[in-house]
Amino acid sequence: MATFERHIFICGNQRVPGHPRGCCDPEGKAELQKQIKQKLKERGLHGKVRANQSGCLDQCEHGPNLVIYPEAVWYGGVSLADVDEIIESHVMGGKPVERLRLRDSCINTPACEHKRRPDSPSK
Amino acid sequence: MATFERHIFICGNQRVPGHPRGCCDPEGKAELQKQIKQKLKERGLHGKVRANQSGCLDQCEHGPNLVIYPEAVWYGGVSLADVDEIIESHVMGGKPVERLRLRDSCINTPACEHKRRPDSPSK
Repeated sequence: MATFERHIFICGNQRVPGHPRGCCDPEGKAELQKQIKQKLKERGLHGKVRANQSGCLDQCEHGPNLVIYPEAVWYGGVSLADVDEIIESHVMGGKPVERLRLRDSCINTPACEHKRRPDSPSK
Repeated sequence: MATFERHIFICGNQRVPGHPRGCCDPEGKAELQKQIKQKLKERGLHGKVRANQSGCLDQCEHGPNLVIYPEAVWYGGVSLADVDEIIESHVMGGKPVERLRLRDSCINTPACEHKRRPDSPSK
């Protein structure tokens, strides 16, 4: 079967409550990864597309985050309600979901406008 | 800075001792991921290439495994002694380390010759 057609890495990182960067999976339940895995299976994509749990993807301020390879398309603020659209539009249709994409000006960018300032409320 | 030039996912999965598939990080110490991260930092690649902890990559029989995107090059049986070569040859030089690559005939292949048979010793 060879390599996965697409490989989705879903951040499951937890940080201590109140950490200024926040984190993608504060409760550590991996609900997003589990739902994507289940929905892929329902569509017959098991073994072709993998929904992989991952450690911190280092885009914490934009979480919950995931990245889809080999395209290297990053998504932020992803909720369970977005899973069907990501699978149908991007994974199956090859068309990324633009409203959820992280901008290049945010990814790995210390000056990203979404980084919390020292005096902004943490969550 | 935008997306990572390369994104390395290192399996940190543990299974119960004696599981027939084995696992990539039986002691759960993430030593491989930590070493790759440290070596990347020493070479000034922090922020450009990410050494990411990952959940099970589902190639357990070949572990310890890692995959490098966007190329989707898979490596198996990786030890701490291999880290410099992977970074220098592949990450910095763009030339995969052939002796460690998983073959396409192994990846996601139920009939792969490396799968343990029911009567073969588990580890």
